Amino acid sequence: MRAGAVNSSGQVSHRLSLPTRANRGPEEVIERIVSTVLKVIDQVKSQGDWVEAVGIGSPGIIDIRTGTVVTSPNFPEWRRIPLKQIMEKRLPYPVFLDNDANAFAYGEKWVGVGKNVQSMVCLTLGTGVGGAIILGGRLWHGADGMAGEVGHMTVKPNGLKCNCGNYGCLESYASASSVVRRVTAAIRTGTPSIILNLADGDLEKITSTLVYQAALKGDPLAMQVMKETATFLGIGIANLINLLNPEMIVVGGGLANAWDLIYPIAEDEICRRAFLTLAKTAKICKASLGDDAGIIGAAGIACFSMQDVSCAF
Amino acid sequence: MRAGAVNSSGQVSHRLSLPTRANRGPEEVIERIVSTVLKVIDQVKSQGDWVEAVGIGSPGIIDIRTGTVVTSPNFPEWRRIPLKQIMEKRLPYPVFLDNDANAFAYGEKWVGVGKNVQSMVCLTLGTGVGGAIILGGRLWHGADGMAGEVGHMTVKPNGLKCNCGNYGCLESYASASSVVRRVTAAIRTGTPSIILNLADGDLEKITSTLVYQAALKGDPLAMQVMKETATFLGIGIANLINLLNPEMIVVGGGLANAWDLIYPIAEDEICRRAFLTLAKTAKICKASLGDDAGIIGAAGIACFSMQDVSCAF
Repeated sequence: MRAGAVNSSGQVSHRLSLPTRANRGPEEVIERIVSTVLKVIDQVKSQGDWVEAVGIGSPGIIDIRTGTVVTSPNFPEWRRIPLKQIMEKRLPYPVFLDNDANAFAYGEKWVGVGKNVQSMVCLTLGTGVGGAIILGGRLWHGADGMAGEVGHMTVKPNGLKCNCGNYGCLESYASASSVVRRVTAAIRTGTPSIILNLADGDLEKITSTLVYQAALKGDPLAMQVMKETATFLGIGIANLINLLNPEMIVVGGGLANAWDLIYPIAEDEICRRAFLTLAKTAKICKASLGDDAGIIGAAGIACFSMQDVSCAF
Repeated sequence: MRAGAVNSSGQVSHRLSLPTRANRGPEEVIERIVSTVLKVIDQVKSQGDWVEAVGIGSPGIIDIRTGTVVTSPNFPEWRRIPLKQIMEKRLPYPVFLDNDANAFAYGEKWVGVGKNVQSMVCLTLGTGVGGAIILGGRLWHGADGMAGEVGHMTVKPNGLKCNCGNYGCLESYASASSVVRRVTAAIRTGTPSIILNLADGDLEKITSTLVYQAALKGDPLAMQVMKETATFLGIGIANLINLLNPEMIVVGGGLANAWDLIYPIAEDEICRRAFLTLAKTAKICKASLGDDAGIIGAAGIACFSMQDVSCAF
């Protein structure tokens, strides 16, 4: 977990980072969150600055109305944890909670590439494909607070099996993990590739970054998998453009590091499938906040929620 | 074209309907719109009632800010026609203009199946597949006023060619026209079917209603095409549910008359592909306004626009 102080211009200071240790259960993790936040607050105050609010970006399903972590995929013991309420008992500040994909979107909207943009869809290509939708300047949470599941749009009806149980989700083609999975499977069945050398001969060490590097060196398997990834990303983005006619699409997450390779292929597919007027309007941008995205995004949650108390939309 | 008076409860009276005669050019069509609207207004007034506003639902791309018909597929001569402005010069009432799919959504939201619903996506399965998105109780028009192109979501990357030039759009599988096209093509290549008998042996007379009737009688070709149609409709709806987490999906248009056949198959596909919580939330409903949908929807445009002057969202 990472924490930091963010000023009203989105500048980060007093960064702290420490292992989450999810296996020790919610109580201990919450204790560590509280003590970390208190440390940052002390540092801010010791410099004569003040604190307005605390924002938290958490993985999983969040009920933003009550500030509860409903479930969280990598934290199996977290079920209906009223994190906002617990934190507000321990801290003399309002606490705002949302999920990490929404935090990412709030950050990019607040001080990132989407600064003056009123409508945008954000995608994070990491372990999965996360998503968040901002319309009319506000995050669209949906009826259950679960809108934005861009990664589970079907892009190939009889395609690869997804972790969600469905077949042919965008996530099965455009997540960093799916790139590694497809490359590893191909190497196992004997497809020659330099990726294995780059991973010191260890299939377990293959990462999407190594696949990207191999593709840049002209490795046919790496190029084919990256091309497939970018094509399906393009199909997904074209669908979002035709549906929502947004001003911007922001792509982040680990796989966005391969942007120079992925973008031209995705763009071709978008031009082929989205209406021309809409495709011209929608700027496709790489996320801009880098390592601080999580911290700025969490602060963004607090910032936007305080501006807009009628935050149900 | 159809016109009518709609009271504040959405009840229709003084219906008039007449051929559009689009081939005679915009001036004559506008003249016919004005005289028809004036006739309805006279009838309303002669009964001692009064008129608040005029709403128009038009096919094509509409700039709602200026009330201009930008282009309209079946009206090639209509280019940048400032219909609102022209009408307001001729009528002593405010005039509101939007496209026909949005009008359909306004109608269902106002007095139809979506009456108390804050978030819903509407699909019309007709010549094409139209769409409209209502979020937070308001129609989402998008950055260019063209959001809601549900019919041009790719549901099968290398699928059938669509009228838009793309391949595998929802419209190529789930419009009433596409049903007729696929059935006709299959019969031409020798697939046996009772549909041709139902159409008096004339391929040109095949309609989606006849295909539906043949499917009910167990005709294998009709059943296969209707199943494919419903499956892709289900994929499209599952995508909308995962993306937007709406309270309701409303399906209208000619093909919705085959609802009892289509719905169970589409529902299976939705359950397979959408997240369970979201699928439980989203009620899938057949449109409720029937023949009056266009008239009520047009009045709905006026009704919602007058309630909400900050209608940019």
